[in-house]
Amino acid sequence: MSTAVSPLAPQQVPDMPAIVGVRLATAEAGIRYANRTDVLLALFDIGTTTAGVFTRSKCPSAPVEWCRANLKSGKARALVVNSGNANAFTGKSGREATQLTAQIAAKAARCKRSEVFLASTGVIGEPLDASKFVPVMEGLAARARAGDFLAAAKAIMTTDTFPKVATAIARIGKSIVRVNGIAKGAGMIAPDMATMLSFVFTDAAISGQALQSMLKEAVADTFNAVTIDGDTSTSDTLMIFATGKAGNSRIRHAVDTKVKDFRRALHAVLANLSEQVARDGEGARKLVEVVVEGAVSQASARRIAMSIANSPLVKTAIAGEDANWGRVVMAVGKAGEPADRDKLAIWFSGIRVAHKGARDPAYNEAAVSAAMKKPEIRLKVALGLGKGRDRVLTCDLTKEYVAINGDYRS
Amino acid sequence: MSTAVSPLAPQQVPDMPAIVGVRLATAEAGIRYANRTDVLLALFDIGTTTAGVFTRSKCPSAPVEWCRANLKSGKARALVVNSGNANAFTGKSGREATQLTAQIAAKAARCKRSEVFLASTGVIGEPLDASKFVPVMEGLAARARAGDFLAAAKAIMTTDTFPKVATAIARIGKSIVRVNGIAKGAGMIAPDMATMLSFVFTDAAISGQALQSMLKEAVADTFNAVTIDGDTSTSDTLMIFATGKAGNSRIRHAVDTKVKDFRRALHAVLANLSEQVARDGEGARKLVEVVVEGAVSQASARRIAMSIANSPLVKTAIAGEDANWGRVVMAVGKAGEPADRDKLAIWFSGIRVAHKGARDPAYNEAAVSAAMKKPEIRLKVALGLGKGRDRVLTCDLTKEYVAINGDYRS
Repeated sequence: MSTAVSPLAPQQVPDMPAIVGVRLATAEAGIRYANRTDVLLALFDIGTTTAGVFTRSKCPSAPVEWCRANLKSGKARALVVNSGNANAFTGKSGREATQLTAQIAAKAARCKRSEVFLASTGVIGEPLDASKFVPVMEGLAARARAGDFLAAAKAIMTTDTFPKVATAIARIGKSIVRVNGIAKGAGMIAPDMATMLSFVFTDAAISGQALQSMLKEAVADTFNAVTIDGDTSTSDTLMIFATGKAGNSRIRHAVDTKVKDFRRALHAVLANLSEQVARDGEGARKLVEVVVEGAVSQASARRIAMSIANSPLVKTAIAGEDANWGRVVMAVGKAGEPADRDKLAIWFSGIRVAHKGARDPAYNEAAVSAAMKKPEIRLKVALGLGKGRDRVLTCDLTKEYVAINGDYRS
Repeated sequence: MSTAVSPLAPQQVPDMPAIVGVRLATAEAGIRYANRTDVLLALFDIGTTTAGVFTRSKCPSAPVEWCRANLKSGKARALVVNSGNANAFTGKSGREATQLTAQIAAKAARCKRSEVFLASTGVIGEPLDASKFVPVMEGLAARARAGDFLAAAKAIMTTDTFPKVATAIARIGKSIVRVNGIAKGAGMIAPDMATMLSFVFTDAAISGQALQSMLKEAVADTFNAVTIDGDTSTSDTLMIFATGKAGNSRIRHAVDTKVKDFRRALHAVLANLSEQVARDGEGARKLVEVVVEGAVSQASARRIAMSIANSPLVKTAIAGEDANWGRVVMAVGKAGEPADRDKLAIWFSGIRVAHKGARDPAYNEAAVSAAMKKPEIRLKVALGLGKGRDRVLTCDLTKEYVAINGDYRS
């Protein structure tokens, strides 16, 4: 497995400010990896609210079930995330592992077990030995401090080639609030929760109910509009924690007009992180934006865009720097959505290659070839039927993807 | 691109008997390939009936539209198939190419244009120069003779590594009838017509309407139960031609009990050909049978089996000879069908690796590893919910697939 950083990695990593009320620590628990951190503890001050969206898999991991069950109160005091083992499809031992982890963390954080949230990522189908958290948890709690978010992002990586962080500032009334996010990918990324794990931290004072509403809205065209391989993890988790330390008057409902700028900031952080996930798709050498317009509805545009973005033949063509619009037509055709072949137009990176259901008469192979060599490709399809438009992000499908996933467990 | 024959190719090629009333010829028209045949002409005696099933793509190729439009009469006198260019997404020029091809073939075959059927396979999105058929068509018609089906199968290959033929005998009343089939794959194979091109020839006397009914039935668990990469071609075509020369009393309706043995033979030929397509999946090194049982219905079992068979992560794991049942759980979970994680059991090639939602206590890594090294893998999932059962065939996802499809057009 290559450990080289993706050539699509962002060239600059933002300075991540501290979030008052959030303390972080990482450790080497030896879950699977040697000589690297693999557990993150985040501690939250009393009064922290939370919300989350999770995988729609019918076979979710034990930590996902734990979080769903404990989310109702909307209150959080601790988050424990490990990499190396997803604690998914682990049956009774999986449930016991979540209970033991929550018990240890609750003791260290001096809170209720139900205020502890859990996420695990890595191999699925193998028991997670939660007793490995015992020797490190008290030390994590003692060392936890206002934060090193980059270290936190590193501790939750699996096949990611770079840590993913993003930050934004928003105004709520007269208060300035901060929104920090971390995420990890990098395969098994598909809609209905695209990311495997992402956590957002803010010092804003917002109710759990309002957070839930805003999170659900913001995820639709960010994490849910990213696909790497069409596979959906059993562990997909996106949670937000709001400490309320910024001093704004508490937001109770998502419809409150004072929260508009916060919505924008939250969306920006999720959009940034989800793009980083696409940039770090397993084996990715090209970032691909798929835009579909002229569909009969936005939902139809989304389904067609996903059909294109998940097509192995489209993705391998892009890996081969081949503007193979014929395969794009194929992917449009198989989406099952209204489409009229003879109205289709297709662009690669702004160059129209197909028009009215055939090759563009003005098509210039050399110009398109040059565009296809670039690391970012914009693939646009105009259906000519209506006003539905949508956009998704993906990456190419390379031999490296096969190597990473053929060798992953062994 | 590798030109080595798939290691999964059948070890024996059957002797293909002649079908009375069918004459075949192949030629080098130079459509795309050099030094190989790329056009097949099949001529049928007067009275030949036909039926067909085609891609469900919303953007079908020009030849698919041609065949659909001319199928209503149920009569056929000629079939022209070319490889190297699919004549798909070729707009007005594509329609003109089908008209010109049919005109040339009708003249050579001395029949109506509407009695000529067409199929094209290869690159999509590039104009097909049908004038290349002009210099070869009369010669094809003159040379056509009772047949060399293997040569016919070779002429329609694209990235196939071996020609695909199958034959069977059936009894209708007191008559013996023959059923010969040819097919080509090898990528872009997904349900809703799985194959790209397949043609079946029989000397039985059966009405077009009865053929259509039997073909539709036989395809459900043969070609429609094969997937290579989840992509659906714009050109998928399966047609049957029945010359009526065997002397059986003509079958008018598919419900006729006399046609039972013919149904069996037709099914056997399609099952054989569709398995060969899976064995020649682009880059395939493993033939994978996915069996799902205990689902709430057969349709649910099919959808779950397809979710497994199309999962890049399952397919790359199998390429890596890794019995990664966790990814199978993931694929079950993402199918959107009823599933209870804690009732799941999973077998690789007869060895149970997971039981009641967790690793099988008796799981033996060495035994499974040995099984995974074999060229044929049987993956079984028991859901424990109902009596729904289904089976699909697929292959692994290898670096060779990426190489073939990244380099195809260039």
